[in-house]
Amino acid sequence: MKILALDTSSIVATVAVMDEGKLIGEYTIHHKRTHSQKLMPMIEELLKNCELTMQDIDVVAVAEGPGSFTGLRIGVATAKGLAHAVNIPVVGISTLDALAMNSAFSHGIICPILDAKRSQVYAGVYKWDHENLHIIEEPMAISIENLVEKLSERPENVLFLGDGIENNKDYLIEKLKKRAVFAPNSVKMPRASSVAQIGLQKAKNKKLQNYYELTPTYLRKSEAERQYEEKMKRCGECED
Amino acid sequence: MKILALDTSSIVATVAVMDEGKLIGEYTIHHKRTHSQKLMPMIEELLKNCELTMQDIDVVAVAEGPGSFTGLRIGVATAKGLAHAVNIPVVGISTLDALAMNSAFSHGIICPILDAKRSQVYAGVYKWDHENLHIIEEPMAISIENLVEKLSERPENVLFLGDGIENNKDYLIEKLKKRAVFAPNSVKMPRASSVAQIGLQKAKNKKLQNYYELTPTYLRKSEAERQYEEKMKRCGECED
Repeated sequence: MKILALDTSSIVATVAVMDEGKLIGEYTIHHKRTHSQKLMPMIEELLKNCELTMQDIDVVAVAEGPGSFTGLRIGVATAKGLAHAVNIPVVGISTLDALAMNSAFSHGIICPILDAKRSQVYAGVYKWDHENLHIIEEPMAISIENLVEKLSERPENVLFLGDGIENNKDYLIEKLKKRAVFAPNSVKMPRASSVAQIGLQKAKNKKLQNYYELTPTYLRKSEAERQYEEKMKRCGECED
Repeated sequence: MKILALDTSSIVATVAVMDEGKLIGEYTIHHKRTHSQKLMPMIEELLKNCELTMQDIDVVAVAEGPGSFTGLRIGVATAKGLAHAVNIPVVGISTLDALAMNSAFSHGIICPILDAKRSQVYAGVYKWDHENLHIIEEPMAISIENLVEKLSERPENVLFLGDGIENNKDYLIEKLKKRAVFAPNSVKMPRASSVAQIGLQKAKNKKLQNYYELTPTYLRKSEAERQYEEKMKRCGECED
């Protein structure tokens, strides 16, 4: 079974093709958020270099969120379009699960954090037990202070990954001291190979979806929705 | 400082660009050993998509071996050529060190193994201590039986990576039982981002080389050299 995986949940655009035996190819660009221009040419280039076409692909896996709202929409829309064209199933993978997979078998606990703006991060907490990745805290939108409080309740070192490190590194070191460990650049940001790896596992467990069903997992309302609801609430109050 | 990294030590062709802050891009193809045809177009495509040229690159890092003799020659020759063209230093990175870097912060010990033919593997043994990767056994050409003997002297789980897994997996499980753990496809084979990560560290520690000095690290004599020497030896015996 060949899986095509995409992740455009952050500033990074990353695509990969994998089968049960190997990572056939991967292409990652972390340079300007121009996913709508770059994603399709990257997929085309990767497939061509692996002598594959979409007809050879059995499943499309995509990072479904949390992450950048626009990025997720581009990734999910592209996955749906590709899957629709050749009539194959899709599978949505949590962006945070995929980041945790970047640091396979790491000791301690793993905490991917993504910048969620408005003084919050999207975060999850994971731990490897022999060859299995366990979720300790499900993906959540949380303030960095509350996240550190949760992490302080445990004894292990914490490996941080993701773009949320940038604004919070000093605070994490101040609070967690030597327990805070930061992923090297080579695995810090999303990699489609990790999305593919989890996607293959889900396909094996028959957890595939029809392309009509797939939707992004935003975890929070978008800025536009939030503003609209506040406006509606204010209007409601005016009428009272 | 921007580093361009290449690894063609195995069937995988992989290139990456990284600076101190991030992995800017990475491109990996595991499909047919046609490095001499694919490597330069892959570098060109990656640089173009990151809006970079060779003039923006400060150092070229290359997997210097052990590995496929032809693969290493293509990688090292390409690195030298590129570095010569824009007059920048190079740095050779052990293929095994780079594979160990693929599994950043993993628990237990790490043992990258590469198929060395003639009933041997190229292998090294590593361990993460907090944020540092330590070498327990330097790169060596060794029989799988002798390697397992060395690994049996230690108590930890052993994470195996590399193309040497394929032919030896059953034997490793038989001998090491549950202590043998195998890297997922997403990190099992060479990744230029790991070469770049170690290369940046070496550049920081002023361990760069002039492109004239760089040579592959074969660890063993090539088949042609071995046959030539045997023939010469036989000729010598004839003359006696």
